[in-house]
Amino acid sequence: MTNHNDISLESYLESRRAIINEALNQHIPGDDAYPPIIFKAIRHSLFAGGKRLRPILCLAAAEAVGGDIYVMLPVACALEFIHTYSLIHDDLPAMDNDDYRRGKPTLHKAFNEAVAILAGDALLTEAFRLMSDKELSRRIPAQKILDAIQIISKAAGCFGMIGGQTVDILSEGTEVDAKTLHYIHTRKTGAMIVAAVKAGALLSNATEKQILSLSAYAENIGLAFQIADDILNVEGDPKVMGKKSGTDACRGKITFPALMGIESSRTEIHKLVERAIIELANFDHHAIPLKMIAQYVMERNA
Amino acid sequence: MTNHNDISLESYLESRRAIINEALNQHIPGDDAYPPIIFKAIRHSLFAGGKRLRPILCLAAAEAVGGDIYVMLPVACALEFIHTYSLIHDDLPAMDNDDYRRGKPTLHKAFNEAVAILAGDALLTEAFRLMSDKELSRRIPAQKILDAIQIISKAAGCFGMIGGQTVDILSEGTEVDAKTLHYIHTRKTGAMIVAAVKAGALLSNATEKQILSLSAYAENIGLAFQIADDILNVEGDPKVMGKKSGTDACRGKITFPALMGIESSRTEIHKLVERAIIELANFDHHAIPLKMIAQYVMERNA
Repeated sequence: MTNHNDISLESYLESRRAIINEALNQHIPGDDAYPPIIFKAIRHSLFAGGKRLRPILCLAAAEAVGGDIYVMLPVACALEFIHTYSLIHDDLPAMDNDDYRRGKPTLHKAFNEAVAILAGDALLTEAFRLMSDKELSRRIPAQKILDAIQIISKAAGCFGMIGGQTVDILSEGTEVDAKTLHYIHTRKTGAMIVAAVKAGALLSNATEKQILSLSAYAENIGLAFQIADDILNVEGDPKVMGKKSGTDACRGKITFPALMGIESSRTEIHKLVERAIIELANFDHHAIPLKMIAQYVMERNA
Repeated sequence: MTNHNDISLESYLESRRAIINEALNQHIPGDDAYPPIIFKAIRHSLFAGGKRLRPILCLAAAEAVGGDIYVMLPVACALEFIHTYSLIHDDLPAMDNDDYRRGKPTLHKAFNEAVAILAGDALLTEAFRLMSDKELSRRIPAQKILDAIQIISKAAGCFGMIGGQTVDILSEGTEVDAKTLHYIHTRKTGAMIVAAVKAGALLSNATEKQILSLSAYAENIGLAFQIADDILNVEGDPKVMGKKSGTDACRGKITFPALMGIESSRTEIHKLVERAIIELANFDHHAIPLKMIAQYVMERNA
């Protein structure tokens, strides 16, 4: 799937990841902090080679409306904290019971279950500490920050990510219809992707109209990303992904490819990415990163 | 331990609990919300007869500096959400592995582990949704709310409650010194009790000096409360407490009474409560509820 944009896409993502990783590193105390095990555990999962999609989207949305990505970094880190906590808890024996993620033992395997539960809880809590810190409110009006916290907590909560994960877990091994699958996908993955884009735009003084377009962009990207994830679970290379493939089917998890076939799923991804890009029509060259991310979602293999 | 203040203390606590329970009920959707199981699970733990100490302290601190307790209710509810999440996760098999709390099956027993993990995560997340809601920022300046979120997230995070719980879990069955026990108590219980009082005062326009006195009050009360808890675990009536006694000793958990004996522990509680009340010397009659709560901490039997 190589094309002429690949180099710039890769280098763009790499440079963004470097900025985000540096910020994440600054926001988590080293092993000399007490109790060291909790920070070691957090670092194990936080620096396990994540794609940083949510923080990258947050920064790109800020950029698209003329915002400063460096001002936005605490929010970008908070989004990655929340994403990482959700993976740690999803991997637990009582949930998906996964031993590996991104080629490394999952946190409860590397440490133990108690530490994994606590490290997840800590990341979720520290996300809100980061967003309420003076580092951000010195630069952005407090009410806008509260609005961003509201958007992100709603997306992460009962009617968002946790709702999606709850239905996903309960649906294992049962007959699931297209409507339920759509609920799971839009909540479990989609909600936080939309929140990342909305928060980045809102905190960068986007207009109402811009936020609407960017939300629609993110909804399409989010669903495309999840379908791509499902396809990778069926036919991805475990070496590239760092985890086993075929696990969804083994667990009796319903997926897009299982429901509509691999080829239709691919066509759906293309349609969604096209729709996402159309939403960017009224933005200038500052929205190029968002277009590149759309392309990445379509072409990713891990 | 009956004395002439008992009736007014009891009726004060009861009336506060009624207000808080009503607000909690309003802030959690009913079983008709989707997915119903998560709301059923949350309600199971949230309405299991909790003492509501943290929200009551938050309202009493607001009152002590002339604030409006009804304005403060979303924050009071958020504090109880966070407290309840911490109990749900602490009870999990990988943590304290408790089957009963307040005479009812713990959440993972009544439902299952996955639902208990998710309901805890949900309560923690929804706490921040409540605090960032317009219901609060219509009445209180946004920057003050951010400061309260900062205080509460710090107290609940790695250097507060989660730090305390981590050290508590890791210390089971090991030789623990007085310094470590003090760390566990001040972080695991004390931090959120101090945060409850500070947030209530800060959001009600307390002066810096008032916040300092109230924080010192709360530190003393928090430690007294925890020592009382340890004593109850040794010699409390399981019927009144709704859970087994003697569980700390069985687990090899270090406690105050184990370290310094029951009588010395009682003397310590008296000293701490006295010190707490001295911190209220410069407050007028609006601080009477805080004094009553100090008395309650000393006399409680469940």
